[in-house]
Parts: sequence; C-alpha cells; structure tokens
Amino acid sequence: MTYRIDGLQYANWSEKIFRQMRQGGLDAVHVTIAYHETFRETVLNVERWNRWFEQFPDLIMKGRWAGDVRTAHETGRTAIFFGFQNPSPIEDDIGLVEVWHDLGARFMQLTYNNQSLLATGCYEAEDSGLTRMGREVIREMNRVGLVVDMSHSADRSTIEAADHSQRPIAITHANLHSWQPALRNKCDDVVRAVTENGGMMGFSIYPHHLKDKSDCTLQSFCEMIAMAAERFGVRHFGIGSDLCQDQPDSIVEWMRTGRWTKSIDYGEGSAQNPGFPPQPSWFTDNTDFPNLVDGLKQVGFNDIEIAGLMGDNWLRFFDENFTPDQKEPES
Amino acid sequence: MTYRIDGLQYANWSEKIFRQMRQGGLDAVHVTIAYHETFRETVLNVERWNRWFEQFPDLIMKGRWAGDVRTAHETGRTAIFFGFQNPSPIEDDIGLVEVWHDLGARFMQLTYNNQSLLATGCYEAEDSGLTRMGREVIREMNRVGLVVDMSHSADRSTIEAADHSQRPIAITHANLHSWQPALRNKCDDVVRAVTENGGMMGFSIYPHHLKDKSDCTLQSFCEMIAMAAERFGVRHFGIGSDLCQDQPDSIVEWMRTGRWTKSIDYGEGSAQNPGFPPQPSWFTDNTDFPNLVDGLKQVGFNDIEIAGLMGDNWLRFFDENFTPDQKEPES
Repeated sequence: MTYRIDGLQYANWSEKIFRQMRQGGLDAVHVTIAYHETFRETVLNVERWNRWFEQFPDLIMKGRWAGDVRTAHETGRTAIFFGFQNPSPIEDDIGLVEVWHDLGARFMQLTYNNQSLLATGCYEAEDSGLTRMGREVIREMNRVGLVVDMSHSADRSTIEAADHSQRPIAITHANLHSWQPALRNKCDDVVRAVTENGGMMGFSIYPHHLKDKSDCTLQSFCEMIAMAAERFGVRHFGIGSDLCQDQPDSIVEWMRTGRWTKSIDYGEGSAQNPGFPPQPSWFTDNTDFPNLVDGLKQVGFNDIEIAGLMGDNWLRFFDENFTPDQKEPES
Repeated sequence: MTYRIDGLQYANWSEKIFRQMRQGGLDAVHVTIAYHETFRETVLNVERWNRWFEQFPDLIMKGRWAGDVRTAHETGRTAIFFGFQNPSPIEDDIGLVEVWHDLGARFMQLTYNNQSLLATGCYEAEDSGLTRMGREVIREMNRVGLVVDMSHSADRSTIEAADHSQRPIAITHANLHSWQPALRNKCDDVVRAVTENGGMMGFSIYPHHLKDKSDCTLQSFCEMIAMAAERFGVRHFGIGSDLCQDQPDSIVEWMRTGRWTKSIDYGEGSAQNPGFPPQPSWFTDNTDFPNLVDGLKQVGFNDIEIAGLMGDNWLRFFDENFTPDQKEPES
C-alpha cells in the first residue's frame, strides 16, 4: 500500500479544494494554521477547521497520529495535520508546546524569516543560532512529539536545531539552493545536517523557490529531486508543495509583514510583483499530484522510490515523530 | 474488578495529596481546573497539571477516556479528569467546547451559583431556565462528549438541562435536600429528572452540605445514600466528595466572589464563619475513602452496591459519556 502526502499547504480552504484533494488522491496534508497569530488567535483557526471537519466528514478528517493517514486512506478521505510557520502560537510560554500537541499541532517552525524568541530566520543579516529558549523548546517539542520545522530559518540556526534536537527535524517546504539560489532554498550543508540526523525535506512548488520560477518545467523540478536523492538518500525526501491555492494577494502581504512592520516588505516578491506568482502549468491545484508521479518516472525513479517521494517517506516520519517520547512507568 | 472514583475535588495539589490518593485507593478523580477563569487562564491551569503529570508519573496520569481509569488501576496510579465549575473557560464561544474536549475537559457546570450565559445558578432569586446559548452549548457538549454538570445550578435550569440534553447529565457533588435543606442540595424532583434520564449524582462531604455540618456522622451520611438509592436506584449514585484539602481560606473567598463582585459574599458560610469549615472526623483527606466502604456496609449495602457507589457507577458513566457522539462515515 502506498500513501500520498503533501508536507505543506496554505490554501483558502473550501469544499472545492477538499474535493480536489480527493481527486488528487491525497491521504494527508500538513496545513498551516498560524503565520503570526497569538495563542488565542490560533485557537480561533482551530475552531474554523473543526467546523470544516464537521461539515465535510466524507472529505476530510482531523489528523493526529500516523495511523490517521491509514484511516483516511481506507475511508476515502484526506487527513489534515496542523502546523505553525512561526512559534507565535506558544508566545513566551514553553507550557503551550504540550497544550498545542494536545490540540493536534504536529509541526512548528522555529522562525518565519525574522528572528524569533527561539532562533534566526533566513531574512536576518546575522544568524546567531539557537537562543536559550530555543534549546529548551526543542527539548520540549521532542518530549511531546511536535516536529521542529526549519523551512524559513537561517542556515546556522537550522544546523544547530538538527544537531540539538534528539529527534529528527523537518524542512517541510524548500528546494536545493544549488539548483535555484533563492534565500529560502537550502544549501547542501543544511540538507546534510537535517538528513544525516534522520530528518525529512519536502520539495516546494512555490514559484519563487523554482528555477525559472513560474516557467519551471516539471522535468527540471524532478531532476532537482533526483540530484537530492543521489546526494542525501531518497528516503529523506517528499513533497511540501507550499500550495496557496485561491488566496488573494492580501494574504501574501499578511504572510510577509504580519504585525512586525508598518512598512511593506516584499519578501521573495518585488514592488513590480508584490502578489502571489502564477503556479507552473503542471501544478496549479490539488488535482495535479498525479503529474508529479509522471515526472518522477521520467527522470528514472522506480516505483518504490516514487511511492516514497509521494508520501510513504512522510508517513514513516509521521510514524516515528508524532507520539510522545515519554516512557510510561512499568506496570 | 472494582474501581474507586471521586466525582469531584479541588485540593491545593501537592505530592503529599497525590500519595494520599494512592493510599486511599483512588483510581480516578475529577478535579476542578476552573471556577471563574477565562479560556486563557484555564489553559495556564492545564499547564500546571501537565507539570505535575511529568513530575509524578508514578502517582498520577492524565485521564481522557474511561479506559484510562483501568490503566491507572493496573499501573497503581490515579487518573486525573479535568472539569470546570463554571462555563467561563468557553467565554462566549461555542467553538471552545470542542477545543476543551481536546484538551481533556470532561465535565462543565453550566453555572456556578450565579446566572451565566447558559443557565441560572442556585443563588439567584429568579430561575429563568436554559438560555438560547445554553441550549446550543448542551447540544455541542453532547456531540463532543463533555458532560453537563448542574451541581451549582438552580432547580428549573437543572430539570430543563436533564430533559434537553440528549445524553445523561451529572450532579457531581451535592446531597439530598430532604436530608439537609441547604441551597446547594437537590430536591427530589431535580434528582428524579437527572436519574430518570440516565444521569449520575455524586454525594458531597463538604460540611455545608451535611446534616449537622462538620458534626455529621458517617452513619447519617450513609443513611442518606441508602434513602437516595431506595428512591432513585443505587446505580445512579457515587461519591463527589468536594474535598478542598489544604486550601487556605482565601480560596473559598475566590470561589464565592471571583471577579463578579467587589463586595464580600459568604455563600454557604457567614461573617462569623467565612472560611472553609472543618471536615467531619471520618473524612479529612484522601486516605479516608475506606471509611466510606465501612459506613456503607453498616447501613446494609451489599458488596456489589458498594462497589457501584465507590466507583463502578461513575466508571460506567465515564464509559458512556466521554467519547464523541459523532458517527463516522461508512468506509
């Protein structure tokens, strides 16, 4: 049995998109429920999802454990796993790590582009590595089963997180810097630190992370995956499409500026192109996952490798990293 | 196998008390984690409990499901189930009902003495019954598996809740009004409405709820239980000791006044006796549960009835009422 999992999406959710997930054959998606939200604001986002789970029980279900991916597969639904792109939902309170795990959060980025209380983001001029609180929070995330995600973090911080963490970490959505030298893509030293410690990386189809951006070909994208697999081992990779389907441009502005600035920050865009860039033709929405299977076949991956890249590698990672690390006392 | 469960406590928790729970043979305790706290303040109380679960894993464990009572019994620990004496932790937001169930809350009182957004408390002059929001929240509590507790509610509101609720409700801690006519004790019409709908009532050993208060005898208390069992059926009853062990008197003032008044409200006490009353000699702390077994035997209950009253009746209720009512779609 093989499973299909997307390691990150932040769509403007709707019944249409949930139906497209089914058409695309997705058994599970890690969805972002916070960019800059406080604890209380993120709880409101959980409530929105709870309404969708109640309204569309034949299309989606809440994902808590790896087994929920299998349940979703067997019942023809998509399991939705919660994650944060920023540690803002824990505010300054390490006790909220376990509270969030109870509420279903399974991934948390330590930074979103900027310096956080925990580590340095990839847009800062200086990367000072993990903070004192950052080291404590990683230990607590390890204990409860909340995965450290360094997608938007700076290099030194990411390598330190991979080494300090007692459980594997993830880069849920990024590509190889050697293929497309975007600030958000990861140089080989970073990918090596993450994968050598058992971690996972999901490949992004957000145009700013692609060679030739919106004009990137499926072949070029899949060749990059082949390069990564050869260098670091295919089992450490999957998809993290970063699909922001149906979002208005006001959302990419919120993602970039939150409440940390009163000015405009264009992030990976520019004054000429401030909004979401157009998706490449071969991946415009959730129905396009089968195209990736074809592309991977074309560059020479075998069926088992393709199954791994399309979801089985993520499922193995979910199996090992979502449950608490705590040992129960002997009975 | 028989289990020992206390249907309500609000102690000044400490390792000493957790050890006494073990000495008293308690497999599970429903503990109060909110009197007047907002959502965010109650989350801080959850965090305190999480620290205790981490610090004392050989004494206590978090209780989520009825099966955790059995696990606790088998591993020599006490399962701690969370509950609220007031709906303040859901504020004005019905979506927080499910959020709280995810965080482990299993009981919520619709009122604490005063009028709430949901129903009328037992200290109000007028009891206007369930509010519009109250009816909606009961339905949502039914859906997710959060038990309606009417211990501090007024009579009409309680009867309406018992009738409106599609699942059995509870009075976790109170006694028969016909035995001791305290405002907090329940008249037969109320007990009948709750038990006829499959509900449970836990008997309180808080002195203001006892005949002769702190001087109440174990025999008199157990005779009251025998009276209730004869009138309404023994299977609907258990213990809800309302033990407030080691609490300073400032806590009973907080319980009574919260932030709803700037004046003093003595509740069941008086200007002469504003603090916690002394416990009766036969029930001063968690080690005294075996005394109740002896007392019940003396008034003529048989072993099966005693097992029911000491915990098995609560466990049957937990089995039936803590899980979501939602039907999964056919696979």
